[in-house]
Amino acid sequence: MPPTSESADKVTIHFKPQDRQTRVPAGSTLFNAANWIGLAIDSTCGGMGTCGKCRVRILGGDPAITQADRKVFSADELAAGWRLSCRAEVLTDLTCEVPRLMGNPKAAIMGFGKHIILNPNVHKVFLKLPPAVLEDQRSDYERVRAALDDAGFEVVAGLAVRRRLPKTLRNADWNVTAVVVGQQLVAVEPGDTSKRSFGVSFDIGTTTVVGLLINLANGSPLSAKSALNGQAIYGADVIARISHTMLNADGLQQLSDRILRTLNDVLARLLAEAQVAPEEIYEVVVAGNATMTHLLLGFDPEAIGVEPFIPVAEDMFSVRAAELGLTVHPEAPVVVLPHIGAYVGADLVAGILATGIQQKPGVRLLVDVGTNGEIILGSAARTLATAAPAGPAFEGARIQDGMRAADGAIEVVKLDADGVHLQVIGDVPPIGLCGSGLLDIVAQLRLTGLLDASGQMLSPEAAAAQVPPRLAERVTLTAEGVKSFLLASAEQSGSGRPIQITQRDIRELQFAKGAIAGGIAVLMNVLAITAADLQEIYLAGSFGSYINPQSARVIGLVPPVPVERIKAVGNSAGEGARIALVSFRERSIAQAIPANVEYLELSGRADFNDAFIEVLAFPPLEALAVPAA
Amino acid sequence: MPPTSESADKVTIHFKPQDRQTRVPAGSTLFNAANWIGLAIDSTCGGMGTCGKCRVRILGGDPAITQADRKVFSADELAAGWRLSCRAEVLTDLTCEVPRLMGNPKAAIMGFGKHIILNPNVHKVFLKLPPAVLEDQRSDYERVRAALDDAGFEVVAGLAVRRRLPKTLRNADWNVTAVVVGQQLVAVEPGDTSKRSFGVSFDIGTTTVVGLLINLANGSPLSAKSALNGQAIYGADVIARISHTMLNADGLQQLSDRILRTLNDVLARLLAEAQVAPEEIYEVVVAGNATMTHLLLGFDPEAIGVEPFIPVAEDMFSVRAAELGLTVHPEAPVVVLPHIGAYVGADLVAGILATGIQQKPGVRLLVDVGTNGEIILGSAARTLATAAPAGPAFEGARIQDGMRAADGAIEVVKLDADGVHLQVIGDVPPIGLCGSGLLDIVAQLRLTGLLDASGQMLSPEAAAAQVPPRLAERVTLTAEGVKSFLLASAEQSGSGRPIQITQRDIRELQFAKGAIAGGIAVLMNVLAITAADLQEIYLAGSFGSYINPQSARVIGLVPPVPVERIKAVGNSAGEGARIALVSFRERSIAQAIPANVEYLELSGRADFNDAFIEVLAFPPLEALAVPAA
Repeated sequence: MPPTSESADKVTIHFKPQDRQTRVPAGSTLFNAANWIGLAIDSTCGGMGTCGKCRVRILGGDPAITQADRKVFSADELAAGWRLSCRAEVLTDLTCEVPRLMGNPKAAIMGFGKHIILNPNVHKVFLKLPPAVLEDQRSDYERVRAALDDAGFEVVAGLAVRRRLPKTLRNADWNVTAVVVGQQLVAVEPGDTSKRSFGVSFDIGTTTVVGLLINLANGSPLSAKSALNGQAIYGADVIARISHTMLNADGLQQLSDRILRTLNDVLARLLAEAQVAPEEIYEVVVAGNATMTHLLLGFDPEAIGVEPFIPVAEDMFSVRAAELGLTVHPEAPVVVLPHIGAYVGADLVAGILATGIQQKPGVRLLVDVGTNGEIILGSAARTLATAAPAGPAFEGARIQDGMRAADGAIEVVKLDADGVHLQVIGDVPPIGLCGSGLLDIVAQLRLTGLLDASGQMLSPEAAAAQVPPRLAERVTLTAEGVKSFLLASAEQSGSGRPIQITQRDIRELQFAKGAIAGGIAVLMNVLAITAADLQEIYLAGSFGSYINPQSARVIGLVPPVPVERIKAVGNSAGEGARIALVSFRERSIAQAIPANVEYLELSGRADFNDAFIEVLAFPPLEALAVPAA
Repeated sequence: MPPTSESADKVTIHFKPQDRQTRVPAGSTLFNAANWIGLAIDSTCGGMGTCGKCRVRILGGDPAITQADRKVFSADELAAGWRLSCRAEVLTDLTCEVPRLMGNPKAAIMGFGKHIILNPNVHKVFLKLPPAVLEDQRSDYERVRAALDDAGFEVVAGLAVRRRLPKTLRNADWNVTAVVVGQQLVAVEPGDTSKRSFGVSFDIGTTTVVGLLINLANGSPLSAKSALNGQAIYGADVIARISHTMLNADGLQQLSDRILRTLNDVLARLLAEAQVAPEEIYEVVVAGNATMTHLLLGFDPEAIGVEPFIPVAEDMFSVRAAELGLTVHPEAPVVVLPHIGAYVGADLVAGILATGIQQKPGVRLLVDVGTNGEIILGSAARTLATAAPAGPAFEGARIQDGMRAADGAIEVVKLDADGVHLQVIGDVPPIGLCGSGLLDIVAQLRLTGLLDASGQMLSPEAAAAQVPPRLAERVTLTAEGVKSFLLASAEQSGSGRPIQITQRDIRELQFAKGAIAGGIAVLMNVLAITAADLQEIYLAGSFGSYINPQSARVIGLVPPVPVERIKAVGNSAGEGARIALVSFRERSIAQAIPANVEYLELSGRADFNDAFIEVLAFPPLEALAVPAA
């Protein structure tokens, strides 16, 4: 088997002087890799390689010099390692230097190559107010309001900001900075603080919470932190969490407290790293699935968990940070992005925003692979959404040697005549298979002929007859007589036990991928399109981003498009939240997304059951145009 | 001296079956008297005596039968005591029966004969929602929102109402009543509660707080309660209260807590009497002077107390009851009416609303007599406002035998050849003089010739020569040689000490009335009008309403207009608050009043000082066309 050009390899990139590190699929651009971890690289051209602003200097590793590089850099510069990060594809581990941001870019590349005009909802306006005198007895608030009106801002103000006005104005000798968020006068600060304006975007995953602290003056992230969702002790998935609220009188309160604490923990670390005070965070944007945002807002999620699956509310919703208990400016709006349905939540709305599916003419597919596979299919003309009940196989559950993507997890598997080649997370021996590794091994078994289209593994005898001996020798029967394939022996394994994939594991994966592929098939039928019509397939989410696109194709998780059309888009939910934070225009687009998406409920749909059965099997290798073993 | 037709007498009216009692100036209509204490009498015609709805039955006392009565009632009915309350002038003590309100009048007479169309800001809408099913997976909130949209209400909803939605909708089997206040969805209640909708209006006086609980379905008051402002222990007037906040670190908090407690006490009694739950009060409207509303809202009033006299805010302002701590529905808006200036507050805005000064073509004068005399002068064309520093004389302070209007206070004084005739509050011997009694005795001394125009009292000798002996014998010199007039001897007095009015008291009153009359003169000069141009003079406030209009004229507190043009308008601030509660249209008018009123600051105005000196003396009796003694 020759290595395919769409390598399954992960590469490590080290950014300096920020000293940040990330692992991305080989072939990602440096610019996107930086973006995904919230590291700002200057840019105004929209990633077209023309503005010449996204320059980085390669310190170790050697990406090819591109045509765009030759236009922008001198021979000396090229020799010194300068490259345009939006063009530089990373094929091997690499270290590079990112210059500090110069000036205030008024636009930036975010999401999946989207060109975002910066217009945050937060405005800071320095005001030199005329002091109060007998000839000008306007009230404190009217004085501020009128000055803001002159500056083009129409505002209203609540109790808290009014209460602080008299002392602030007089102590600051009438020189103050007004903080306007939308139409709300959120604060009046002494002196000129107009240069310091910050916001935070959150992606609340069932497992992981990611927060970005953004400098709203230029849209650049100053810090990115993540944490495990503190609700995990009450259950791994949304159904377990919902059950907890149903079975315990104070369950809702416990889960709400937990997620709030997690957000505040992440906030504390963001603020500490960026040297920003809580009161300087004037707006927060939140993406997450409906259950997560319900629990954050203290909404009872019970009706999400049982038929007919009804959320409390789906609209974009803003609440004062103080009312929620988030430790930012107490008057800061916390904006929760809207939902499409109980199981297609704000995380997918953010993903649609970040990928721009609804702004493009061709049909695109966005799949967030997880316990629920959320599927978006559409274009500027029409968009459909659904959620497919994949079950926990992708998360490593119900798989004999399954595990989460953590140190010791096999994340990449390749088989060839020499045997098995593994990539393991962390510098440790393997202890189990995470989701991307599971997909890889099943796809590789299929490509080597060890699995037939129905998912049957060859018997040890048949394997010996049909595949190279270094592979065949790994096919055995377990004590219960179940066929299995050995990935690592007890000696190679970090746990002292062998790591295997069994026929049963393969069946689990077939059910999981069948649900998602079935959902995709239903949506494609409704739109009356075929795989040939699909311009791009975006794999999103903490798991989806790590799937080898080739493996996804081979097992039939996604339709059989040319592999270069399948793209990992990283944490598109977090990216969408960030876009909605830095651009009010984009936030308005996000607000309108649910109204422009048709949600299809798969439960009880006969065509879904039919499609599910049809796609349980693996696609014929001929259809994929990949070389069989 | 013949009794004048504009009798200074107070009469007592007893309303049944409500068992409510009030004392009003003789000549008031029964309808207005009921209105001033918040007792609802049906009416739709605007008090013109034509709708025939405001019928009451006289049980004791005998008001004359009017032309309007003859048109509406049969001879039998007239004989049985039926009268139209809007026509029935009360000249003697009287008991009458008020029929219970029939149906829902959509208009009512409020304020000073204003015809108010009822359109409260609170709407209750019963909704039979389609249950959630797989074919209709709209969220709970969207289901309610869409149904309200169909019913013509565009709403937004906050955290609290959303949190309660899932349980309420399902427990109530999808039959619920939405409470919409303005554009805010304030509550969703199980079942059909659309018939129960209530609001409360408050007038927060420095001394007294008055609350009305209004049935918003028909605008009628269900209960009226008052209480002493609990801040009184920190000082009697606004300056003392402001000083308390400046001298004590927790002074603002103490005063805020006190007024909140007072309001909650009044609320508790209103709710108990009307058998209404706190959660059924969906809106509160507050009038009061700027210092009182500042303290309620927790605004530092310091800048109100010192030059240049600046409030924190003057606009109409709404805050959630929960944020303030008022024990009504936690999401109910508490609407504080706007202010015109630091010393012409929401109480005067409410008074302008209730009297309709700005809706009428002729020029009218509204005076709220107190420590500060607030003065409004104008018409639909142009309105001016100011506050005159009258000092505490009208409240009985700095007057040797002065006291507040409480049991034992002399409230009415008449002098004639037979001597002194007193009316005393309560069924007790006199113990002092309240403001209205003070004005009466000074006016009567002036009319009898015992005071000259400059305010000099006759010496005992001159008195003996010029006035009837029963009056002259009461003029003496005090131990310090100050001239004084005896109102009640030690034997007649309830305190065992004689009650006198001294030359010094008269000087205090001259200063107090001079400030107000001077303020009025400045405003009249600015408008370039004379007394002949004044259509009406309204005396407002807890004190102003009890002034004998004739006395006010005689001492020159108000310009020398024919006495029938001087009208007591009761608690016009409370009445304005009530109007703003039951009519959103009227509230919008109130909101716009400050922008349509020019505030004149008297401090440091040379023309005010000139006017003050000019009006210190009493007007010549010839100018008043009243018979001298």
